[in-house]
Amino acid sequence: MSEPRLLPLLGDPPPERRDAARNREALLVAAQSLIDECGVEHMTMEAVAARAGVGKGTVFRRFESREGLMAALLNHSESAWQAAVMSGPPPLGPGAEPMERLLAFGRSRLESTLRHHELVRAAGRAGSRSYAVWSFTAMHVRYLLGELGVEGDLPLLATALLAPLELPILEQQLSVEKFPLDRVVDGWVDLVHRVVRTPDQPA
Amino acid sequence: MSEPRLLPLLGDPPPERRDAARNREALLVAAQSLIDECGVEHMTMEAVAARAGVGKGTVFRRFESREGLMAALLNHSESAWQAAVMSGPPPLGPGAEPMERLLAFGRSRLESTLRHHELVRAAGRAGSRSYAVWSFTAMHVRYLLGELGVEGDLPLLATALLAPLELPILEQQLSVEKFPLDRVVDGWVDLVHRVVRTPDQPA
Repeated sequence: MSEPRLLPLLGDPPPERRDAARNREALLVAAQSLIDECGVEHMTMEAVAARAGVGKGTVFRRFESREGLMAALLNHSESAWQAAVMSGPPPLGPGAEPMERLLAFGRSRLESTLRHHELVRAAGRAGSRSYAVWSFTAMHVRYLLGELGVEGDLPLLATALLAPLELPILEQQLSVEKFPLDRVVDGWVDLVHRVVRTPDQPA
Repeated sequence: MSEPRLLPLLGDPPPERRDAARNREALLVAAQSLIDECGVEHMTMEAVAARAGVGKGTVFRRFESREGLMAALLNHSESAWQAAVMSGPPPLGPGAEPMERLLAFGRSRLESTLRHHELVRAAGRAGSRSYAVWSFTAMHVRYLLGELGVEGDLPLLATALLAPLELPILEQQLSVEKFPLDRVVDGWVDLVHRVVRTPDQPA
């Protein structure tokens, strides 16, 4: 099975005039820098416009609402992450052993989900995690399980490895149970090793 | 580790006068029978009142809103399910081997989540799956993993077994990927066996 390189990146925009694309990019960079500096709650359409040096109307024309801008930021960030998985440096990208890539993938997915936590919430319905993102991660994990020679129902095993990395589960573990992040990561690594072991390994 | 029998059942109501409790029970039974016969969308407060032979005002006084009634139904059903797990007949209840109980638990949890699917949606925020339900299931799976002699971080392994049974994951598998239900159940059984195998089993 060859690596699914031809999958279109999530959020690839339809062709835009170059200055419009630049404009959009500038607004997303402005919004992200505001969030990094002041937190999601301070990212207002006015503040983004001021930081990017454009009128507020331009920001609304481009993203319709604050929720729309949040969703665009999420998409932008998911696209960058997908690109890193598919063609970035190892061990997340190609070039490392499949087990090393799988463990790097899990840690990176977990961190990215936690980093986007507030953004997902702020984007409301517009930002609900899309099946496109899920499909990308499922296809990638399935590919790596195949490379590892795992036998069994690989799509379902991929799902089993991805499910504990979903936000509600992570929130339960980190915020409610108060498990340290390292413990959650170690637990996931242990799960991967249990899933990958060959079942007919002689006792 | 002894079985966590002393855990209070979810949704145990505060003490009510006996006739009020009977009244409440009658309304829940009426609502459930309407849903079973006509679907969640036809369960109106008027229809529930008519079926139970009381005024609409009584239904509203009791549950405040349609969402409130849906949430009460969910709680009622979760309580019955928890009672079946803790003291019902084997293999879901006590008396069967731990592996048999664990597999019966997974299938039953999956079926209950799917059965309540529409109810969860209709209950809106009032019905968002509570951490109390999650804690009960996590404690039970952790107990069974202990009985099976599994070594490792049992709370995290319990989470890993429960996460693929959450509704968004099941919906992705059944409604989007169109996997048959049996395949999803088989996948979960395979996951359990992989997780339970002793890691230091000599190769």
